[in-house]
Amino acid sequence: MTRSDVGRLLGALFLSALAFEPAVGQTKARARDLGIALDGTPGRFDAITDVPGVEVGYTTLIEGEGKRTVGKGPVRTGVTAILPRGHGSFGSVFGAFYAGNGNGDMTGTHWVEESGVIETPILITNTLSVGTVRDAAVAWMVKHDAPGPFWYPVVAETSDGRLNDQKGLHVKAEHAMRALDSAAAGPIAEGNVGGGTGMLCNGFKGGTGTASRVLAAEHGGFTLGVLVQCNYGTRSQLRIAGIPVGREIEGYTPCVAQRMEPPVLRADGTPAPVCSDSSGLDAPAPDEPNEAEQGSIIVVVATDAPLTPDQLKRIARRVSLGMGRLGSIHGNGSGDIFIAFSTANPGADAGNSDVDGVALPPANIQRLSSDAMDPLFTATAEATEEAIVNAMLAADTMTGADYWRYYAIPHAELQSVLTKHGRLVEQR
Amino acid sequence: MTRSDVGRLLGALFLSALAFEPAVGQTKARARDLGIALDGTPGRFDAITDVPGVEVGYTTLIEGEGKRTVGKGPVRTGVTAILPRGHGSFGSVFGAFYAGNGNGDMTGTHWVEESGVIETPILITNTLSVGTVRDAAVAWMVKHDAPGPFWYPVVAETSDGRLNDQKGLHVKAEHAMRALDSAAAGPIAEGNVGGGTGMLCNGFKGGTGTASRVLAAEHGGFTLGVLVQCNYGTRSQLRIAGIPVGREIEGYTPCVAQRMEPPVLRADGTPAPVCSDSSGLDAPAPDEPNEAEQGSIIVVVATDAPLTPDQLKRIARRVSLGMGRLGSIHGNGSGDIFIAFSTANPGADAGNSDVDGVALPPANIQRLSSDAMDPLFTATAEATEEAIVNAMLAADTMTGADYWRYYAIPHAELQSVLTKHGRLVEQR
Amino acid sequence: MTRSDVGRLLGALFLSALAFEPAVGQTKARARDLGIALDGTPGRFDAITDVPGVEVGYTTLIEGEGKRTVGKGPVRTGVTAILPRGHGSFGSVFGAFYAGNGNGDMTGTHWVEESGVIETPILITNTLSVGTVRDAAVAWMVKHDAPGPFWYPVVAETSDGRLNDQKGLHVKAEHAMRALDSAAAGPIAEGNVGGGTGMLCNGFKGGTGTASRVLAAEHGGFTLGVLVQCNYGTRSQLRIAGIPVGREIEGYTPCVAQRMEPPVLRADGTPAPVCSDSSGLDAPAPDEPNEAEQGSIIVVVATDAPLTPDQLKRIARRVSLGMGRLGSIHGNGSGDIFIAFSTANPGADAGNSDVDGVALPPANIQRLSSDAMDPLFTATAEATEEAIVNAMLAADTMTGADYWRYYAIPHAELQSVLTKHGRLVEQR
Amino acid sequence: MTRSDVGRLLGALFLSALAFEPAVGQTKARARDLGIALDGTPGRFDAITDVPGVEVGYTTLIEGEGKRTVGKGPVRTGVTAILPRGHGSFGSVFGAFYAGNGNGDMTGTHWVEESGVIETPILITNTLSVGTVRDAAVAWMVKHDAPGPFWYPVVAETSDGRLNDQKGLHVKAEHAMRALDSAAAGPIAEGNVGGGTGMLCNGFKGGTGTASRVLAAEHGGFTLGVLVQCNYGTRSQLRIAGIPVGREIEGYTPCVAQRMEPPVLRADGTPAPVCSDSSGLDAPAPDEPNEAEQGSIIVVVATDAPLTPDQLKRIARRVSLGMGRLGSIHGNGSGDIFIAFSTANPGADAGNSDVDGVALPPANIQRLSSDAMDPLFTATAEATEEAIVNAMLAADTMTGADYWRYYAIPHAELQSVLTKHGRLVEQR
Repeated sequence: MTRSDVGRLLGALFLSALAFEPAVGQTKARARDLGIALDGTPGRFDAITDVPGVEVGYTTLIEGEGKRTVGKGPVRTGVTAILPRGHGSFGSVFGAFYAGNGNGDMTGTHWVEESGVIETPILITNTLSVGTVRDAAVAWMVKHDAPGPFWYPVVAETSDGRLNDQKGLHVKAEHAMRALDSAAAGPIAEGNVGGGTGMLCNGFKGGTGTASRVLAAEHGGFTLGVLVQCNYGTRSQLRIAGIPVGREIEGYTPCVAQRMEPPVLRADGTPAPVCSDSSGLDAPAPDEPNEAEQGSIIVVVATDAPLTPDQLKRIARRVSLGMGRLGSIHGNGSGDIFIAFSTANPGADAGNSDVDGVALPPANIQRLSSDAMDPLFTATAEATEEAIVNAMLAADTMTGADYWRYYAIPHAELQSVLTKHGRLVEQR
Repeated sequence: MTRSDVGRLLGALFLSALAFEPAVGQTKARARDLGIALDGTPGRFDAITDVPGVEVGYTTLIEGEGKRTVGKGPVRTGVTAILPRGHGSFGSVFGAFYAGNGNGDMTGTHWVEESGVIETPILITNTLSVGTVRDAAVAWMVKHDAPGPFWYPVVAETSDGRLNDQKGLHVKAEHAMRALDSAAAGPIAEGNVGGGTGMLCNGFKGGTGTASRVLAAEHGGFTLGVLVQCNYGTRSQLRIAGIPVGREIEGYTPCVAQRMEPPVLRADGTPAPVCSDSSGLDAPAPDEPNEAEQGSIIVVVATDAPLTPDQLKRIARRVSLGMGRLGSIHGNGSGDIFIAFSTANPGADAGNSDVDGVALPPANIQRLSSDAMDPLFTATAEATEEAIVNAMLAADTMTGADYWRYYAIPHAELQSVLTKHGRLVEQR
Repeated sequence: MTRSDVGRLLGALFLSALAFEPAVGQTKARARDLGIALDGTPGRFDAITDVPGVEVGYTTLIEGEGKRTVGKGPVRTGVTAILPRGHGSFGSVFGAFYAGNGNGDMTGTHWVEESGVIETPILITNTLSVGTVRDAAVAWMVKHDAPGPFWYPVVAETSDGRLNDQKGLHVKAEHAMRALDSAAAGPIAEGNVGGGTGMLCNGFKGGTGTASRVLAAEHGGFTLGVLVQCNYGTRSQLRIAGIPVGREIEGYTPCVAQRMEPPVLRADGTPAPVCSDSSGLDAPAPDEPNEAEQGSIIVVVATDAPLTPDQLKRIARRVSLGMGRLGSIHGNGSGDIFIAFSTANPGADAGNSDVDGVALPPANIQRLSSDAMDPLFTATAEATEEAIVNAMLAADTMTGADYWRYYAIPHAELQSVLTKHGRLVEQR
Repeated sequence: MTRSDVGRLLGALFLSALAFEPAVGQTKARARDLGIALDGTPGRFDAITDVPGVEVGYTTLIEGEGKRTVGKGPVRTGVTAILPRGHGSFGSVFGAFYAGNGNGDMTGTHWVEESGVIETPILITNTLSVGTVRDAAVAWMVKHDAPGPFWYPVVAETSDGRLNDQKGLHVKAEHAMRALDSAAAGPIAEGNVGGGTGMLCNGFKGGTGTASRVLAAEHGGFTLGVLVQCNYGTRSQLRIAGIPVGREIEGYTPCVAQRMEPPVLRADGTPAPVCSDSSGLDAPAPDEPNEAEQGSIIVVVATDAPLTPDQLKRIARRVSLGMGRLGSIHGNGSGDIFIAFSTANPGADAGNSDVDGVALPPANIQRLSSDAMDPLFTATAEATEEAIVNAMLAADTMTGADYWRYYAIPHAELQSVLTKHGRLVEQR
């Protein structure tokens, strides 16, 4: 049984599973396990949690199968929570955002743009649950006695309307709170978890992914980590290690897992193919009419390098370069929104959370010089690239609403294509 | 009985009133009724609804009095809804936003920034109800079969945490829907209505205000209207018709309407004054420790001039000039966020709402030339200035949570100060 | 002989004067001397040079009179140079810019936006001399062994095409160098000096102006200074101390100082009035066809408060609020471009000037917290307002190319109008 | 004799050549000639001039050799001029810019940002000649009776300080004028021409490059063309067709063409290698200390698609995605500045050039809908990618100041590497 067979099997098992708890650790091979050519030196977990203090939690909601009934299901969604300084503190971090293409939402960014301060956790969910999750974040901060009179939670989204009964609004406040409460350091799950549960990416099953880079000592030895909720792109655009693998792998086309009357339609109005078998190999080839890019990607970049908000804006803008390597065009239908923060300089600026209303004296902080930024720019591009690939590799084939099935990118076939192009290196 | 006596009486009456329905029309004198020196030519209603197609609706929530109990009240809040093209159509408009100071939230702006299109109503509420109102807007669009697979509703906020039990989350989805359903053209209520119900402005009671300008025929004869939810500023900053009236009017200092143990504290930690009588005249003078600006203002600008999104961005940025006239500094604690839209060019760009997924041919539209923008810039500054003054003049003195009382700016005293400075013109 | 008579006399004398050297000190009454109502506490010189380290130099070119002959004159132009850290050092400062209306040019801003660092002096001249002055700045930096392989000098402009033979390109490299070499601390000249020599402001003669504010000790005691090259606005827009003084003062309309055939035309195609006498009192009233705003204003804000680039961007944006007080609409024809810098944190970031190419370790710097920004925002609005008024008050009536004459705003009449409105306070 | 041998020979010949005239047509193989894997359909010339109306002209300055003497040479520089609507008209175009990394200058962008209008030609030269070229552009517009009272020419730069005596300021006004006068439609020269003459790109010789895409009829059939002046990047970053070819090609390391005392130093302080022979094969391998990215790239995007300024901003931002494919990190030392314009909608907005000062009525224009943008985004990424590769392929090995020699990327070795990776397709 190959790795990708396992993936398919797991996908089938998930069909009827109900999983509130985040998977612990990683069960599928990641990009470096497979030997995909990548640059740079990752941190211990090759994850955003390599940045000291950063904690990540998920709530994953998978329930039901078959025809979509709004309010009933099937449910394929969730919430991802990132705590920049972990549970021990609500301390603010310097931050900045950039939208590669703003067909999406991320609340709370006006204050980030103005002050350069992020005072709340960062949450990611589906498009229609942003309101619920925003309110839950407020309630959670009240419950935990977070300082300050009010907050503008940073809540981002990508749409899982294909696989999930998104209009059924299955994400409740308790799910957001659970993601926040369960946030932890250390290795984190990828793939069909948290907000990434029902996502699609470059024509395959998408989800949550992460990666990190550690800079050389002479560049300060800083760590930079990335977490993505990957839901963007088309198969023909996709390049991995520079190779248009989406075009070279055959089959695995999204399809409907049983014959339906009337047939399920794709976004372009043509009938969706019916899955001939679990492999999808008999389904129409990817050069069939592509569906327009209507996905999105949220990218969170964390670092312990001492950057001020103006410098974090530069970091956020470099995410586009990592996506460029993978063939992205920041399509009109895509909400490609990125947020970067630095865990250095704790207590430097309390933003609105300064409880007593007395202005603080100037803070003594550290700030990297401009000419030391390049290794961080490189790390941002590289870790973004790898986190997206990891999201795809970790995702399991999923069948969701109206029997739509999206296949995980098949590991063995991917390796085969990359071997053919001399882009598979020795496996880690 | 003077006009301001009436205001105080009305304020008292409101204490125990429960008002879900928007006030119809205007009962108090507006800026031009009082003879305040203002430039330009207003439209028929001197309101944002002078722009053909624009509709406005309110839900006003006023209930209970006395000590604050989270979840119980007192309640002084609401929702304001602006429908750029009215109920007849969900058609998109070109739009753009600008944050004078981004200590606030307005959801949905990433897509406005990217595409230049606003596809949803614009709603304004209190800070902690943004999530609820956003979700309600989605539900309302689903209910009304709005085109498109999903939306990013534009929901803005200012905080009513002083007078309202804001953390009690009294705004429910039904309130947002009612504001949307009740939206109408014609004259609109001002003051303690809708999202503006519990607002404070320049040390006095604030709220909702509006104004408009009609351009001369040789400038195209276009209409531009402004609606504000005014919650920003300090009394010492306030200038009306160029005169620092906040400093020259005596008394009317915010105070607590009964003696409490322990005393209620202001934001700067000093005890709040106890209201000596309904006039507030014995309360400490405004040169007593000022409370830091922690308010906000949302400004919505509508026009029927044919502007493209890049030109609407220019309009949004001019709101600052109107606020500058009134003494604003875009204080750090203030969420001064502005959104502008044009009702010209219907159907020019459906944004995400293009139902069939087939890209449209280029639209034939009209666009003003750059050198014709000045009259619109002037109108934006003037209507912003007047709408803020109207919000203050229409607001009634209100006593809210923990007996905090904020006084309406007294009309007679205001006129007296302006007369002294030769800034009162013949009343309309 | 009144002060304004002196102004007129000086204006006449200037007609045939050739002045390369900057005026030392201030000979005419400034805003506070006249008792104009203004807030805040200015520094020792009420000038940008109150910020320690900041130096300002001018080259003023006034030569010839009569009909315009391109390349011959008349010449009414110059160069202003601001050295953020004075001659002793080319050390960089943190900086940021904002364009209220970008109908103008300021070179070098891409690098300021990206890095937050200004590594060159800031120069201001006329529109068509930007290239010459930019090259001269480079040459001057080479001559003085400034560190770094190359620079992007910050050179801004406003147009003096009405009074000056601007297309004659009379500013030479030596003039820019002289302005740089002559830069000094201490009191600085205002009015018809430096780049401001031939400028027009709000329908009167404009020029260079400055002002400053010192914060209270509990706000850190920082100094913030502003220098403007004022060339924007129309007379009907102008408000001083909140009063539309441009409408209330009679006469002083720009006119042509002798009868010409064919008559000189204004921008709107109507014939310019012929000056009836030196007072201009018989010239058409200001409610005659106004010329469209086609001027500009460059505003330079300096402070010793420890602000990072993201915070300086907030400062730069507040300039609009000071201009709003004076009635500005950031007209389409106006290049209202602002640049702010902080002299705190010397050596924090060398930008491109780091000679050895080895990245520096993170710098230890100070940064103000967000909630301490308000006094600086207030200072920015106030000092901008006052610097513009000072520019107008210090300017002398000037007759330039084609006998166009622009009158200095008459001090006595201005005082008279403000007295009438109760906006003249005790003179300093 | 292989193609790359010819390149070397031509490089040698250029050493003593003086070339004022632009090369006509293309003499070396371009990306598609070599069979490099690229997507999309180019236009007739695969050049920016495929967009009807766009004209390009060059002045190329190559003179002298040997030791650098400031003011004497050697000279390896020039000027590139792009006329958006050709010589026949100074008519404005809608435009927008974006800086991927703003360590560079492009004058005139404040007005482009504000109005969305470009009213001047676009010129590109070396860093220190921006002032001269800007002034020359003004003079040229005066000479040709361009409408309007003044202009803010768009002049961009990248530094040729390594090969050219940049501080010698060899570009004169006449050279800029000649580039403007010689601008023409049709096929255009690439490589060591115009402003690109002395440029370096990804560790090899850089220069000017171009490419275009024609959209399918169902996407409107529009043309989009790109011109680059390529001077950015390091060899280890470079990926072509997804393959890190800079690492796989051996030799060709920049070196000094004769032994010198003291040795010439690289930016990192280490001695530069001495060229062992014309192939550079014995020179240190590319894994030797890399020089930091200190280059830049200017990218000009032209299209005849009917885009408004807000949409052109989206186009300009997509240039980063094309650069991402090639491995760029938008390094701190790099001035990666992009400007996009649309030749559709002639006469829509005259900007400042409206001669009579009377505001025009709203223009009837066309505007693409948001959901039709993707093919243009794809075209932008693809044409940017190809134009950069074309710039490198067309450049000839050049020896400049202080005998520094930069090698053209060797065509045969490049093909060999790509063949090994299965990334060479059938040659055009």
